[in-house]
Amino acid sequence: MLERIKDSFTESIQTKIDAAEALPEPIEKAAEMMVQCLLGGNKILSCGNGGSAGDAQHFSAELLNRYEIERPPLPAIALSCDTSTITAIANDYSYDEIFSKQIFALGQPGDILLAISTSGNSGNIIKAMEAALSRDMTIVALTGKDGGAMAGLMSVGDVEIRVPSNVTARIQEVHLLVIHCLCDNIDRTLFPQDE
Amino acid sequence: MLERIKDSFTESIQTKIDAAEALPEPIEKAAEMMVQCLLGGNKILSCGNGGSAGDAQHFSAELLNRYEIERPPLPAIALSCDTSTITAIANDYSYDEIFSKQIFALGQPGDILLAISTSGNSGNIIKAMEAALSRDMTIVALTGKDGGAMAGLMSVGDVEIRVPSNVTARIQEVHLLVIHCLCDNIDRTLFPQDE
Ligand SMILES: O=P(O)(O)OC[C@@H](O)[C@H]1O[C@H](O)[C@@H](O)[C@@H](O)[C@@H]1O
Ligand SMILES: O=P(O)(O)OC[C@@H](O)[C@H]1O[C@H](O)[C@@H](O)[C@@H](O)[C@@H]1O
Repeated sequence: MLERIKDSFTESIQTKIDAAEALPEPIEKAAEMMVQCLLGGNKILSCGNGGSAGDAQHFSAELLNRYEIERPPLPAIALSCDTSTITAIANDYSYDEIFSKQIFALGQPGDILLAISTSGNSGNIIKAMEAALSRDMTIVALTGKDGGAMAGLMSVGDVEIRVPSNVTARIQEVHLLVIHCLCDNIDRTLFPQDE
Repeated sequence: MLERIKDSFTESIQTKIDAAEALPEPIEKAAEMMVQCLLGGNKILSCGNGGSAGDAQHFSAELLNRYEIERPPLPAIALSCDTSTITAIANDYSYDEIFSKQIFALGQPGDILLAISTSGNSGNIIKAMEAALSRDMTIVALTGKDGGAMAGLMSVGDVEIRVPSNVTARIQEVHLLVIHCLCDNIDRTLFPQDE
């Protein structure tokens, strides 16, 4: 079992080394989009399932509360938090609509959807992206594997950050680092520090 | 900004390389404790604040639903989920008691508390550990920095998994990998696969 643990560390490190080649440019583009969105008075909606719901909430918590520096709260909403709303939508309509219905209610032109899925194929994330497009929002997609159906929904002006791995756990580990990079970039651009 | 992103990747990779030296043995011990707990018909309660709340929920979701293989649901409860309960306890008593009160209600001798804090100093996690000890539960602590006050509360039979870093974001990135290793070990021990 000790060997399996060491192998997981080795795999996780290797996936980050591969990602360090592929991802800094799309991350920088996504951070620029988010900065412009926030400067324009808009907000960021985030969503994901399972571990990616945790990531969506981790991102909104860093914006609403703080990441590393002291600054004013920034507008973000994770769409996986309101279990009363989610169980009502899933029960009355379908689980696939739990995020899209919230986006029809809350999304404004110029807002960003941060859509997180390791497979790129989760039905409720696809419907969330379609809802965002119909609300004139732009999309930052965190994906993995071959990008799935989400990759096919990207328009000019959207950004896909696709982790080069086929293993869900390894992809999630890089997604968390990507989220930290986005928060760091937003903070340092909006609130430059003397260093 | 591109340089900052690349630096974050380098730092994150380096932290995982350091952790790959220090953590596999305590992770193996924690996984063994969790396996014995589940075999004995007990359950795992998890808690954390902010990003670590997401980690606590990520862990319970992998156990209650699934990690990588198909197997029966396993008993875990993340104590950060019930916002009605949390806001009531924080409003009527204090924020420091949001987890400990739930542990007094739900914790049974033989259950495990998975307590997650990058600083090791969050007041509600300390109170959660004290509640767990008084309920004859054992503790798996995921910490960082110098282990904080949590390190001083560990008894024989408990395990601390302390990430060798002083940066909250880097510690959280390793915590997620540790959680994946724990889930992998639990699954492979309880449900061996022909490979
Ligand atoms: O393909 P995704 O959108 O990433 O969705 C995967 C999730 O539904 C969850 O599936 C399993 O329960 C586990 O692999 C979780 O970690 C994952 O978040
Ligand atoms: O010291 P901890 O128990 O890890 O608690 C830290 C949390 O309250 C959160 O603090 C800030 O909001 C951010 O650094 C979050 O990522 C962190 O989870």
